[in-house]
Amino acid sequence: MEREHFSKHYDAELNVIREKLLEMGGKVESMISNAMKSVVERDTPLAEQTIAFDHQINGLEMEIDEKCLEVLARRQPAARDLRFITLALKIVTDLERIGDQCTNICKRARELNAEPPLKPFIDMPRMAQAASFMVKESLDAFVRADADLAIKVCKDDQVVDDLNEQIQRELLTFMLSDPATISRAIKINYMSKCLERIADHATNISEMVIFMVKGKDIRHTIA
Amino acid sequence: MEREHFSKHYDAELNVIREKLLEMGGKVESMISNAMKSVVERDTPLAEQTIAFDHQINGLEMEIDEKCLEVLARRQPAARDLRFITLALKIVTDLERIGDQCTNICKRARELNAEPPLKPFIDMPRMAQAASFMVKESLDAFVRADADLAIKVCKDDQVVDDLNEQIQRELLTFMLSDPATISRAIKINYMSKCLERIADHATNISEMVIFMVKGKDIRHTIA
Repeated sequence: MEREHFSKHYDAELNVIREKLLEMGGKVESMISNAMKSVVERDTPLAEQTIAFDHQINGLEMEIDEKCLEVLARRQPAARDLRFITLALKIVTDLERIGDQCTNICKRARELNAEPPLKPFIDMPRMAQAASFMVKESLDAFVRADADLAIKVCKDDQVVDDLNEQIQRELLTFMLSDPATISRAIKINYMSKCLERIADHATNISEMVIFMVKGKDIRHTIA
Repeated sequence: MEREHFSKHYDAELNVIREKLLEMGGKVESMISNAMKSVVERDTPLAEQTIAFDHQINGLEMEIDEKCLEVLARRQPAARDLRFITLALKIVTDLERIGDQCTNICKRARELNAEPPLKPFIDMPRMAQAASFMVKESLDAFVRADADLAIKVCKDDQVVDDLNEQIQRELLTFMLSDPATISRAIKINYMSKCLERIADHATNISEMVIFMVKGKDIRHTIA
C-alpha cells in the first residue's frame, strides 16, 4: 500500500515533467509561427509581442529544470526513468534556445519592416512550418519513446537545409544584380539561418531520443 | 570504514567526470585554434584533419553522458553533487556543438581555400581567440564553482559580438563595391557567425554555472 502510494506520486511527477515539456513545446511552436507572421505580414507589433513572450519560455525552462532535479533527488529513479529525466533536462535547453532563435528572427523582422519589401516570402514560411513540425514531432517522439518518429525527424532536417540553400542562392542573385538589396538580403539570410538552427535543435532532440530508446548511441552515426 | 570507502569511490567518480569534461574542453579549444589556422593559413589538409577530429569529441560526449547516468543511478547524489552532475550533462552537449561549429568553419575554409583570397584575416583570429578563451574560462568556472569567473565570461561575450558586427560591416563594404566578392564574403560571414555561436555556447555554460553556484536562476536576468 505504501509502495503503491509512492509509485502513484512518482508517476504523477514524471507526468508533470512530460506535460510541462509539451506545454513548452506548444509555446515554442506558436513563437515560430508568430515570428514568421511578423516577417511575412510585416507586423512589427507582433514581432514585439513575440520577443516579450520569450520570457514565458525562459520561465518554463527553470520550472522544468527544478522539477527534474527534485525528482532525481527525492525518487532516485533508475534505468528508463533516469534516462527520461536526464533527457528532459537536455531537451528544455534546446527548447529555450529555439525561443531565442525566434526572438532573433523578430528583431530582424523589426528592422526589415522599416524598409521597403525586397520580395514576397515564399520559401521561408514553408521552411518555418517544416521546422516547427520537426519540433512538434521530436517532442512527440520523446514522450512516446518512439524511435521511428525520431528517425523521421532527423531525415526531415534535409528538407529544411535544402530550403535554406535555395533561399541563400536566390538572395545571392538579388545581391549580384542590385547592390542596393545587399543589406536587406543579409537580414533575410540571417532569418533563414535561424530557422535552420531551429530545425537543428529538433534534430538534436530526436537524436537524443533515439539514444534513449535504443539504449545505445547512434547520435553520431546518422548521416 | 564502509562509509569512508564509499565516499572515496564516489569522489573519485565525480573527479572522473570533472577531468573528462576538462579533457573535452581542451580538445574543443584545439579544434577552434586549428579551424582558424586552416582559414588564415589556407591549410586545407588541416581543415580535413580537424573535421575528422570531431569524432573524438563525439566519443567523449557519449562517455561523459554514460558516466553521469551511472553515478546518478548508483550513488543517488543529493543537493550540490546533483546539480554538478546534471549540469555536466548539459555542458557536454554545448561542448559537442562547439565541435560541430568548428567542423562548419573547416568546411567553409575548404571551399574558400580553393578561391583567391579576399583579404587578410585580422579580426577573425582575434574573435576565435576570444571565443576559445571564453570556453576555457566557462569550464574553469564550472569545475571551481566560481560564479565571478562565470559572470566575467558572460560579459566577455560582448567583445565577440562586437567583432562579429565589425566583420559583417567590413564584408558589406566589400560586397557593395565589388559584386564579385559576394560569394566569398558570404562564406566568411558564415564563419564569423560560427565563432559567435561558439561564444554563445560558452555564455550558456557560464549562465548555468552561475545558477549552480548561486542556487537561484539568473540565467535570464543578465543583460
